[in-house]
Amino acid sequence: MKKFAVVLSGSGVFDGAEIHEATLSLLAIAQAGAAYEIFAPDIQQHHVINHITGEEMNETRNVLIESARIARGKISPLSSFDATAFDALLFPGGFGAAKNLSTLAFEGANCSVNMDVKKAIKAMLSAKKPIGALCIAPAVVARVIQGVIVTIGQDKGTAEAIEAMGATHLNSDHGEVVEDSDNLVYTTPCYMLDATILDIYNGATNVVTAIMDSLK
Amino acid sequence: MKKFAVVLSGSGVFDGAEIHEATLSLLAIAQAGAAYEIFAPDIQQHHVINHITGEEMNETRNVLIESARIARGKISPLSSFDATAFDALLFPGGFGAAKNLSTLAFEGANCSVNMDVKKAIKAMLSAKKPIGALCIAPAVVARVIQGVIVTIGQDKGTAEAIEAMGATHLNSDHGEVVEDSDNLVYTTPCYMLDATILDIYNGATNVVTAIMDSLK
Repeated sequence: MKKFAVVLSGSGVFDGAEIHEATLSLLAIAQAGAAYEIFAPDIQQHHVINHITGEEMNETRNVLIESARIARGKISPLSSFDATAFDALLFPGGFGAAKNLSTLAFEGANCSVNMDVKKAIKAMLSAKKPIGALCIAPAVVARVIQGVIVTIGQDKGTAEAIEAMGATHLNSDHGEVVEDSDNLVYTTPCYMLDATILDIYNGATNVVTAIMDSLK
Repeated sequence: MKKFAVVLSGSGVFDGAEIHEATLSLLAIAQAGAAYEIFAPDIQQHHVINHITGEEMNETRNVLIESARIARGKISPLSSFDATAFDALLFPGGFGAAKNLSTLAFEGANCSVNMDVKKAIKAMLSAKKPIGALCIAPAVVARVIQGVIVTIGQDKGTAEAIEAMGATHLNSDHGEVVEDSDNLVYTTPCYMLDATILDIYNGATNVVTAIMDSLK
């Protein structure tokens, strides 16, 4: 049975992992007949956002502990990730990818990427194992893998930041997957477009299917 | 287009709405060609649980604000729910149903039910409109609708509490729906059994399908 490592960045679109993208990634993996384990970095969130008002709350939350809400408690610190134990690595989106896994939301093309995230991506790249990323997460992958080809949909500012990192951005529509077959990187826009939950299910399913096909 | 009201109870299985059940309910509704709006009571959570350790955290969180994480910000206080605007009412599970929507987790068969939850259920019952509930949430419905027939799976203690409320409990397996066609109440066990995310998707889909069939 093929095994995915899924990396979360909190729990909630505005300060963590996008919950629909995360949940539907897990569903897509299970429907493909594969298994998953869930990881997140054991760090403080950049901030906590009230998801009704969009305002910052005077609180601190931990990315690993909040991600455990999506994982129903079955989660490990990303520092313990071992690429030899997995066939694929998958990053759902949400602002957590741009605020907790990296500083993309604040520093754009010059952002730094969390050390454990960088290590996990590089380990999979070296092992020639596939990496999937949804929504804004492809920009984080682009910051780590020089010259990778990805999509985040059609957002001009983010696409320009990705190109400024030395990567190639291809525009895409709902559910479409951009495949970089040299680097084995599979990306899809999800909620970076004005999408419905049906589009997210299609996007997650299509990325997981492309990854499973690459493993045949 | 048929329209569901989905009632959440926070965001995270141990102190709020179960995230997979909530997300996959939304997916099932969209896949059935129906629309949804999301509601939650504007109250403090009973407590906040660290989802890795299971221990209580020294924090307070609001049920409506945390539910907004699953709803991506598009959510209304349950006090504003108007039964005339909807075709069906749906309660995903999670301990939030037993801790925030009611006091079931602490008082069993003698529990009280949040006023807005009670009002919403009674309004739908009076209007002869269907109500769905997953996981532990059927026990909350059983406390409001005298003599209703529901399932929460096979948990003996909870089944006995439901019977002690004057309701009827029928055992069920993964994905099965118990239909009470007099009261138009549709329930399925989801994570009240030792289930996978595939079972949750089946359970949510089967409840939504049964409700859609009842609306024909």
